[in-house]
Amino acid sequence: MELLPNVLYGAAYYHEYEPYERLDQDVAMMKKAGFSVVRMGESTWSLWEPEDGHFTYAWMDRVVDAMGKAGIKVIMGTPTYSLPVWLYHEHPEMLARPLGGAPQFYGMRQNMDTDNPIFRSYAQRLVAHLVEHYRNNPNVIGWQVDNETSSNGASNPDVFAGFVHHLQEKFGTPQNLNKAWFLNYWGQDINNWNEMPTPDSAQSTGYKLEWSRWQQMRVTNYLAWQAALVRQYRRPDQFVTTDFAGAMHRDVNEFEVAKSLDIAADNIYHGTQDNMDGWAQAEHGDFTRSLKHSNYLITETNAQTTDWTSAFQYPPYDGQLRLDAYTDLSSGANMVEYWHWGSIHSGQETYWKGVLSHDLEPNRAYAEVSRIGNELRRIGPHLVDLKISNQVGILWSTDSLNAISFMPFSSSGPQWASAQPVADYGTLVSQVHHTLYRLNVGADFVFPEDPDFSRYKVLIIPALYIADDALLQKISDYVENGGHVLMTFKSGFANEDSAVRWERAPGPLRKATGFSYQEFSSLEHPLALKGDPFGAGAENKVSYWAEFLMPEHATALAWYDHPFFGRWPAITRNSFGSGTLTYEGTYLSDELQRRVLLDVLTRSGLTGPDQSLPAPVHVKHGTNRFNKRVHYYLNYSGSAQQFVYPYADGVDLPTAHPIAHGKTVTVQPWDVIIVEEN
Amino acid sequence: MELLPNVLYGAAYYHEYEPYERLDQDVAMMKKAGFSVVRMGESTWSLWEPEDGHFTYAWMDRVVDAMGKAGIKVIMGTPTYSLPVWLYHEHPEMLARPLGGAPQFYGMRQNMDTDNPIFRSYAQRLVAHLVEHYRNNPNVIGWQVDNETSSNGASNPDVFAGFVHHLQEKFGTPQNLNKAWFLNYWGQDINNWNEMPTPDSAQSTGYKLEWSRWQQMRVTNYLAWQAALVRQYRRPDQFVTTDFAGAMHRDVNEFEVAKSLDIAADNIYHGTQDNMDGWAQAEHGDFTRSLKHSNYLITETNAQTTDWTSAFQYPPYDGQLRLDAYTDLSSGANMVEYWHWGSIHSGQETYWKGVLSHDLEPNRAYAEVSRIGNELRRIGPHLVDLKISNQVGILWSTDSLNAISFMPFSSSGPQWASAQPVADYGTLVSQVHHTLYRLNVGADFVFPEDPDFSRYKVLIIPALYIADDALLQKISDYVENGGHVLMTFKSGFANEDSAVRWERAPGPLRKATGFSYQEFSSLEHPLALKGDPFGAGAENKVSYWAEFLMPEHATALAWYDHPFFGRWPAITRNSFGSGTLTYEGTYLSDELQRRVLLDVLTRSGLTGPDQSLPAPVHVKHGTNRFNKRVHYYLNYSGSAQQFVYPYADGVDLPTAHPIAHGKTVTVQPWDVIIVEEN
Amino acid sequence: MELLPNVLYGAAYYHEYEPYERLDQDVAMMKKAGFSVVRMGESTWSLWEPEDGHFTYAWMDRVVDAMGKAGIKVIMGTPTYSLPVWLYHEHPEMLARPLGGAPQFYGMRQNMDTDNPIFRSYAQRLVAHLVEHYRNNPNVIGWQVDNETSSNGASNPDVFAGFVHHLQEKFGTPQNLNKAWFLNYWGQDINNWNEMPTPDSAQSTGYKLEWSRWQQMRVTNYLAWQAALVRQYRRPDQFVTTDFAGAMHRDVNEFEVAKSLDIAADNIYHGTQDNMDGWAQAEHGDFTRSLKHSNYLITETNAQTTDWTSAFQYPPYDGQLRLDAYTDLSSGANMVEYWHWGSIHSGQETYWKGVLSHDLEPNRAYAEVSRIGNELRRIGPHLVDLKISNQVGILWSTDSLNAISFMPFSSSGPQWASAQPVADYGTLVSQVHHTLYRLNVGADFVFPEDPDFSRYKVLIIPALYIADDALLQKISDYVENGGHVLMTFKSGFANEDSAVRWERAPGPLRKATGFSYQEFSSLEHPLALKGDPFGAGAENKVSYWAEFLMPEHATALAWYDHPFFGRWPAITRNSFGSGTLTYEGTYLSDELQRRVLLDVLTRSGLTGPDQSLPAPVHVKHGTNRFNKRVHYYLNYSGSAQQFVYPYADGVDLPTAHPIAHGKTVTVQPWDVIIVEEN
Repeated sequence: MELLPNVLYGAAYYHEYEPYERLDQDVAMMKKAGFSVVRMGESTWSLWEPEDGHFTYAWMDRVVDAMGKAGIKVIMGTPTYSLPVWLYHEHPEMLARPLGGAPQFYGMRQNMDTDNPIFRSYAQRLVAHLVEHYRNNPNVIGWQVDNETSSNGASNPDVFAGFVHHLQEKFGTPQNLNKAWFLNYWGQDINNWNEMPTPDSAQSTGYKLEWSRWQQMRVTNYLAWQAALVRQYRRPDQFVTTDFAGAMHRDVNEFEVAKSLDIAADNIYHGTQDNMDGWAQAEHGDFTRSLKHSNYLITETNAQTTDWTSAFQYPPYDGQLRLDAYTDLSSGANMVEYWHWGSIHSGQETYWKGVLSHDLEPNRAYAEVSRIGNELRRIGPHLVDLKISNQVGILWSTDSLNAISFMPFSSSGPQWASAQPVADYGTLVSQVHHTLYRLNVGADFVFPEDPDFSRYKVLIIPALYIADDALLQKISDYVENGGHVLMTFKSGFANEDSAVRWERAPGPLRKATGFSYQEFSSLEHPLALKGDPFGAGAENKVSYWAEFLMPEHATALAWYDHPFFGRWPAITRNSFGSGTLTYEGTYLSDELQRRVLLDVLTRSGLTGPDQSLPAPVHVKHGTNRFNKRVHYYLNYSGSAQQFVYPYADGVDLPTAHPIAHGKTVTVQPWDVIIVEEN
Repeated sequence: MELLPNVLYGAAYYHEYEPYERLDQDVAMMKKAGFSVVRMGESTWSLWEPEDGHFTYAWMDRVVDAMGKAGIKVIMGTPTYSLPVWLYHEHPEMLARPLGGAPQFYGMRQNMDTDNPIFRSYAQRLVAHLVEHYRNNPNVIGWQVDNETSSNGASNPDVFAGFVHHLQEKFGTPQNLNKAWFLNYWGQDINNWNEMPTPDSAQSTGYKLEWSRWQQMRVTNYLAWQAALVRQYRRPDQFVTTDFAGAMHRDVNEFEVAKSLDIAADNIYHGTQDNMDGWAQAEHGDFTRSLKHSNYLITETNAQTTDWTSAFQYPPYDGQLRLDAYTDLSSGANMVEYWHWGSIHSGQETYWKGVLSHDLEPNRAYAEVSRIGNELRRIGPHLVDLKISNQVGILWSTDSLNAISFMPFSSSGPQWASAQPVADYGTLVSQVHHTLYRLNVGADFVFPEDPDFSRYKVLIIPALYIADDALLQKISDYVENGGHVLMTFKSGFANEDSAVRWERAPGPLRKATGFSYQEFSSLEHPLALKGDPFGAGAENKVSYWAEFLMPEHATALAWYDHPFFGRWPAITRNSFGSGTLTYEGTYLSDELQRRVLLDVLTRSGLTGPDQSLPAPVHVKHGTNRFNKRVHYYLNYSGSAQQFVYPYADGVDLPTAHPIAHGKTVTVQPWDVIIVEEN
Repeated sequence: MELLPNVLYGAAYYHEYEPYERLDQDVAMMKKAGFSVVRMGESTWSLWEPEDGHFTYAWMDRVVDAMGKAGIKVIMGTPTYSLPVWLYHEHPEMLARPLGGAPQFYGMRQNMDTDNPIFRSYAQRLVAHLVEHYRNNPNVIGWQVDNETSSNGASNPDVFAGFVHHLQEKFGTPQNLNKAWFLNYWGQDINNWNEMPTPDSAQSTGYKLEWSRWQQMRVTNYLAWQAALVRQYRRPDQFVTTDFAGAMHRDVNEFEVAKSLDIAADNIYHGTQDNMDGWAQAEHGDFTRSLKHSNYLITETNAQTTDWTSAFQYPPYDGQLRLDAYTDLSSGANMVEYWHWGSIHSGQETYWKGVLSHDLEPNRAYAEVSRIGNELRRIGPHLVDLKISNQVGILWSTDSLNAISFMPFSSSGPQWASAQPVADYGTLVSQVHHTLYRLNVGADFVFPEDPDFSRYKVLIIPALYIADDALLQKISDYVENGGHVLMTFKSGFANEDSAVRWERAPGPLRKATGFSYQEFSSLEHPLALKGDPFGAGAENKVSYWAEFLMPEHATALAWYDHPFFGRWPAITRNSFGSGTLTYEGTYLSDELQRRVLLDVLTRSGLTGPDQSLPAPVHVKHGTNRFNKRVHYYLNYSGSAQQFVYPYADGVDLPTAHPIAHGKTVTVQPWDVIIVEEN
């Protein structure tokens, strides 16, 4: 996409939802608030095409024009995420069939089978018209295809037929499939492809994993199809994006989807009031930035409150809206857009409030937004296109997320109830990212398909349950060539079909880990580590899982304090080639994880003054367009914080105050200091 | 209805359920116990009409005759609440279709679509025959139509068609409906009436509210239809009633239903043993009495135990049955009828025990019932038709109950789970009624349709979330004209279509409340009130919800003790015209509510000696047929209680002991003193 | 069946599940481990009959042959518990229809309607072929029909038709049925058999009970049919068994099923690590042994871990596998077979690990199994066919289990939620068995159909809610003739149709119990017994239920400590004829139950030195083939235990050490001493 002159700042805007005409008033208020962008159009197919084949644009043209006159750019969305009633009535079979086949009814959005060919033909006709209509409108700078797209859990006949076709292509013969999925088990092997049972009651772990991949592939294909369609009609300088609903989904492979986009975008909702520490924004930001190793857009984030009921209304404290905007920019966002401008007066999101309250008058939020917007007009050019370069990567495996969820390693309930995980792949990934965040060490996410891990000094690999031999070999080579890996239990255990390897665990990782194991145990109760080797205190224990590691070359870093488990190490480290692999055979408490990770980072030379900041203050670094280093100091607390500024002399961009190396700096409650080095 | 000579006392009686012939024995026991009434016939359509079009009466005639000979009157029920098997087999489509369309099967009672025209024709034929048969039987004094009628959650095609027709009548055009319900949202507006989606997956808050009204209208219409049918055939002095299953339902508008009845009736089940404090009976009694501002019938209440399993069997302590009967009479009941006479030996209600145990012999309950029955024969004429006149009203809004449940303001779980309210409209109403009960201040319920609030000095308005402008204006006028209102948060927030008002909250109430607000917050943790302004102690906090009230004329009575919320008052009072409006912007603890309410009552001159009674003793007042004041003193505890009697000299009706003004009186455990002034 | 030369020891073996050819390797390892038996074939219909009508045996023949060469016997299973895909595709209607009629899909095992006539014809053809094929193979010593058979909850049309036919046979006329089930209630009586409603929404307690019996009868009939089919084709010395999935099911009447078997078999899974105390094995062993009053087979038990997820992986501590094998033998097992040999690499039971881990190499479990196998080769002939003779019986009533579950007497939740029992028939039975186990008093289970209770000195009768008059008379006679009964509340309350008796409770037991009652109460809170009559300490209370017992001849042993309940005794004892009946009108704490039961046992002369062992040590007694007494001392703890050996001089079979009367003996952690008297 084209270089942006400044960060974009604005909101989603639905004039069509408002109870009375107030376009001029809204635009004037936006302009006064310093808005530079709005996102529109993605929610209201029924106005674009009120009846089958009748298209209307006037309702939107006047809004786009008014924005243009006020200097506010438009990102236009294709409105395919919610079916109009007439289309549902013509083709009720479009609704997504859930596993189990319960009947579905019209009413919720995002509930169609996006593979349905008739749905596709209606969507194609509309999107083509729409893009053609606005391709020459200079105020429309980009396109969002669909909205928070997911698989919608669809298992309609056409989805299943596509899946069987996919299996045919992937496995060639039923016999290959039977072997890969071990379908002799319970005598469920198939003789020919048309015998394939539907996924509704599938118990096969191979089937479940491949079905989860198929759901991801459906999302990837659908968005790629829409992106290509838009590209066919758009003006070349209009970018194409889609907005992820947060990150790290079970049925969306964001890394694959991003290949179809000019720029990635994310909807990030986060805690506020006493639950705002910047971490959710950092995790999602790091993930989204890593998809294309580039800057990204925040298409939606909290304005006043976010809630599908009225039981979780937490309007931000004074300063939190502003702190949030800089939080996003500090992770590499090039746009911050609220969802949304004016609160809706009816329906499911009545209490998902916009910048304006239901009275649509200026209010406390509008006042703070106006401060941000006008501040960004001034300092935004120093913040846009921030280049961030991290030396730590976290490997994200959607396959492992899914496969572990089918065979969870923890449960809040008894065995005879369904397992209700309290810890899982997701909590492990969050734990390591949160630990890095608390340590103020920037991290990227890395994907199995990434051809090159070597850009990172340290690679963190949580529970890589699903991996083919090639991926394990790539990890092993990374270590051998000098990389430092921190890896947890269950890594390398199952192959790409979710079959447990039939060589000694951890399979192809054995040389790199320096141990093998034949047994593992759930931990009925948390266990202490013998002698508290990391000085974390006796209350810091390990939980859920213990592999019975038998070191071959590895060194034990910690042992279980238990008469039975005590004979096996809990944590090991192995030198292999010129790198090291530190392995956690069990689930560490947060503080233990912090100490183990800090040890790995320190040995890799990745620590420094950033680890000495007061706990509520987080720092982010990058390089701006002027090739200057920028340091964000963000205070996520209601009290002022002090620290010694350790970098080169610079200036605090919002206040234009000089900040000298070695001087003690105070950052006010819920405030930020942004130092641009001189 | 005709004037009753005495309170009615008896039980439901199902001779047809008994394992062997024992009519004479039962009647003799009833007579000995002082019974004056039984209710029969409503449960056994299959005996009235064993085959399609064949009617039999003999099985019941002999029971009615035997009752007549024993001087026991009969209330006959129309047996339409449970389909006979043959009718189900002829018309399985009669079963109520639940939202979502899950298949339904025969077995449970009250599970038909009462709008089904074939059901109606069968019911009409049967009821007409039945009423005609007993119209000339002098022993049959009244008719109960149907039994504990509700909507049965039916969404059958005919119910939905009726709903669309209702929308057409109410809104005129689809465009009006789209506008009222904001159906542009997610592009779900309709072009014509036949596009209307079913309610199964409706997300529209307008749709949900109107559907809840339609379910109430269905109940109202069905019962009005049956009542009219009975009136067509009955003897004029036979009254028509129906028995509500308790009160304050989401799908029954008792106020509307009552318009079709000669007298209201309620089935009141309540706690026993250590959980009997008289409050449930008082709340339901106050509600039922308020429907027609008149005396009412208790058609069912606890005999021995009430339970659809055997896990909640709590037979009353000695004295509790008698205390319960007088509890009902003290609220204005003219009848107390147990459910039921003899315990059933099989089926769902095996453990919902009658006066007699399964052995059908005299027992502890029968002995106490006999004492009551014979006592009432003596003193009942002094207790029947008690006229009760209260000066406090509580506004009950079924619409607010429903609309708040769609957007609850509290939840026991996290945001990502469905909201499980721990406080809601119902708990608020119960809190204020319970507070009045504990204060021994009598209260009526008031309904939005009530043309005149001015009969009350104090009107309590909990969370009136749904109200049209006219109702809000009526409240405002009531204050302006000298009324005293105690109102809670969320009142006036949404209009009659559950759309949040787009004028500044609280909309048309703004002058009466003396403040406006633009923001509100859920309270993650309870908050104290700064300086404990009501002297309730620091442990008494406010919870769930806080509106950011900006006083315009109102005075702050209390502030939140919190660095952020502390800038807005929690409770305000405004003088408007010659009245006052006290407003709670948050959910008070019970003790805080007690103190705020007592303050309002005291300022309105509604307090006196009744507030000084020992806690377990409750007092109720009324005027009897002899135009004498009657004071009930009911002791809901296992220990004797003493108090100074503050009213004019009188006599204790059960014991005939004189009770003098100013004298200390002792009321025995689970006992009652009923003073009739001289 | 033929006399076994030794206990059988081995595992289930599924060569067809393994990822590569390793038959010779597996057999060599089994042989080295001392295996004498494998169970095979029951899981893989799709290999026996890969296409409709094409049968293959070669895949299994080579496995059977290899076993034969290694001296390992084979139990062959009929593979009817899991449908092949092709059969499902030909006849999807075979899948079991659940109550409520939700659609079912292929994927899970054990989900067919075993009454479906087409299923039966396919099963018949396959089983006949199979048995014929192996009837002359001398290495195949027995047949297991089906696998862990249950009703599969099937309510398919043919199942329902069979049920109606059964009702017709049992009740004769609809009128009789109406009367037995009290169907006048809610007017649900039927006029003719084709009006019978399906069970989906049945509320009738009579219906529910009879439907539960029908599900049991279906299992009995199906297994009897398969057993007869096998007998038609087998070699006469091949035994027929089936493996129960544990014991005491709601839909399996194990006592009736066992009549079709040559020997009973059970799959016993139990706690390990810190949750292994031998009790689960003892309870299931006692139950299975009691079915035919004979030795039995353990067809499946824990190898490494047992878990359908990976959240409950608890590999045994060192010694626990061996202790477990002797635990089973000490209860009368003649075989111990693990499920299974090699862990499966994919599918639902990936983590239900076999003796070998997924690497299929020797491991810790294999080493311990090898020790056991070779030890048993040596000492097994002294352990096989252990004859056990107990003097205490526990009456097991599947009907009472079911009927009480429809009307539970306890609930963890409030009344308005569905009752979630925390105590029920099953917990009562487990409590008394566990108490006996802790006391080291051996017990049998007794079934209502047992013609003779007199073999027991003490008969324990928990909550015999369902019983016809004849059974109650038999109990009464047992007492009158000198038996000692310990009976709990609810016994005798309902008749064989789940109708509460209409004579005074406890009906025909009244003479034997020496009391009657008309009332009972749930206990909202646990109550103490007045004066702690059993010296159990004040913290030991009674819960859930209290019958208001009115002694006629019985003596009160304990009273409730409560102002209301205190007038009725909690526990009574009655002398009747030459026996006694001790009755618990309430649910005792475990310790109270221990003291009451110990009192009964002591008075019956059933106590001795076994009650003085250290808590973790349990003793079992029997007589072996050499007519010698054998005493197992099993130490279920991680620390060594000591006791004085009180029986005649003997020798410890595993170590061949002499054990002298009166000498102090030490049993090592998780170890066993097996004394054969000289």
